Amino acid sequence: MLQENERFDHLIKEDLHIIQNDAYFSFSTDALLLGHFTEVRQRDRILDMCTGNGVIPLILSDKGENLITGIEVQSELVDMARRSVSYNQLETRINIMHMDINEIPSQFKPSQFDLVTCNPPYFKMNQVHQHQLEAHKIARHEVLCTLDDCLRVANHALKEGGRIVMVHRAERMLDIFESMRRYQIEPKKLNMIYSKQHKEAQTIVVEGRKGGRQGLKIASPFYIYDQNNAYTDEMRRIYYG
Amino acid sequence: MLQENERFDHLIKEDLHIIQNDAYFSFSTDALLLGHFTEVRQRDRILDMCTGNGVIPLILSDKGENLITGIEVQSELVDMARRSVSYNQLETRINIMHMDINEIPSQFKPSQFDLVTCNPPYFKMNQVHQHQLEAHKIARHEVLCTLDDCLRVANHALKEGGRIVMVHRAERMLDIFESMRRYQIEPKKLNMIYSKQHKEAQTIVVEGRKGGRQGLKIASPFYIYDQNNAYTDEMRRIYYG
Repeated sequence: MLQENERFDHLIKEDLHIIQNDAYFSFSTDALLLGHFTEVRQRDRILDMCTGNGVIPLILSDKGENLITGIEVQSELVDMARRSVSYNQLETRINIMHMDINEIPSQFKPSQFDLVTCNPPYFKMNQVHQHQLEAHKIARHEVLCTLDDCLRVANHALKEGGRIVMVHRAERMLDIFESMRRYQIEPKKLNMIYSKQHKEAQTIVVEGRKGGRQGLKIASPFYIYDQNNAYTDEMRRIYYG
Repeated sequence: MLQENERFDHLIKEDLHIIQNDAYFSFSTDALLLGHFTEVRQRDRILDMCTGNGVIPLILSDKGENLITGIEVQSELVDMARRSVSYNQLETRINIMHMDINEIPSQFKPSQFDLVTCNPPYFKMNQVHQHQLEAHKIARHEVLCTLDDCLRVANHALKEGGRIVMVHRAERMLDIFESMRRYQIEPKKLNMIYSKQHKEAQTIVVEGRKGGRQGLKIASPFYIYDQNNAYTDEMRRIYYG
C-alpha cells in the first residue's frame, strides 16, 4: 500500500488512516481546522477543491453519510488520496478526481453541490521561490489556481443557497471577501484562528453562501496553544475528539 | 454651565469632564474603544467626524498636544461639545465645528489631516423606527450621513499615508472594507471586540491608510466582560488607566 517515502498517519478522532509524503504534501493544522469548522448537513452533496491527499474528504466522511467529491490537479496526490480512501473502505462515498479545478465548469453541470470546501494554495505567484519543489509550489502557491478561480468555480458548482467553507491566511481576508461577492457568494461567518493569546490572527476560516443575504457573523476566537505552549482544550478536541 | 436634563460625566483616565444629555446623545463604550485603539502621533492633525458631544476629541486630547477638529451636524450637540471643551480649558487645541460632514470637501482644502476618527451612525435608514427621537435617529441611523459618505469625505480630508480609525458594528465589516477600497483607503488593522468569551463579536475597530499597501492585520481579540460579568483588566484600563 505504501510507496517510497510515504507513511501512514492516523486521524485519531475519526479513526481513519491517511497516506502522507512530505516530498509532495502533508496536511497541516489548517486542514484540521477547515474540517472542524465545516458543518455538514445530512443531505449535503460535498465538493472538496484542491483536495491534496484527501484529508478533508476523510475528515468530513466522519460527520455523516454524505457523498464527497475531491478534486486534485497533481496526479501523485490523486494516487495517494485514492489509496487512502481505499484503505479506509470509503470508495462508495468518496470519489477523488484528477482535474484542474478550472475545468469544473466544463466538466460538471452547474449547481450540483450543497457544500464546497477548499484549502487552496495560500501564496501569490510572485512569492514563489525558485528552489522549491514543484509539488510544493503547486500546493502552496497560486501557480495553477488562484483564490479568485476557487470562488468563480464554487459559484458554478454550488446550488443557490449552497455554502462554501474556505481556510486561508488572515492577510488574504479582503481578497476572499471581494472574490466571494464578485461571484454572488455572501460571506456569512468568519472564524479567526490565533496561535495563542495576545498574538495576531494567522489563519481564518470563512463561510459564504451563494445568493445569501448580507450579514457577517464573527465567531468567538479560536486559540491553538495556551500560555504554556500546550494545545488548548478546543484544539485537543479537534485532534482527539 | 449645565442646561436642563444635562449632567457632567467624568472621563476618569483622562481626568476630563463631559456634558451628557440622554435626550440627545451620551457616549457609549464604543467611543471609549475607538479612543483607546486610535494611536496618536506627535505631529498628527486630527479630524473627528460625527463628533457628537465631543467625547473622541476629549479622549484624544489626553494622548498628546495635537490640534483636533470635531465636526457635528446637530447644533445642540455642537453646543454641548463646545461647553465641555471650554470647561476642560481645551479651546486652544479642540475646535468643534457645526457642519454636515458632506460639506467637508467644499469647506476644507484636501489633504489637511493625518488622522481621521469616526464613530458614525450604525444603522441603515430602513432600520429607523418612527417613534424614535429625531436627535437619536440622526446620531444612530444613516439619515444625514452614510458609512460610504464618511469614507469618501475621509479620502478628501486625509493626506496620502494618513489614517482613519473607525468603530462600527461587526456586521457592517464588509461594507467598511468595500467603501474604504472604493476611496483608496486600504484596511490595515482590524480589532474585534467581544462582550465576553464564547460570544460572537459585536463591534469592530478598523484602521485604514490612504494609499496604503495591501495587508490586513487582525489584532488579538478584546473582551469587555470576564466570565463573572465584571470588566476585564483590559477594559478597566480603558476606563481607569
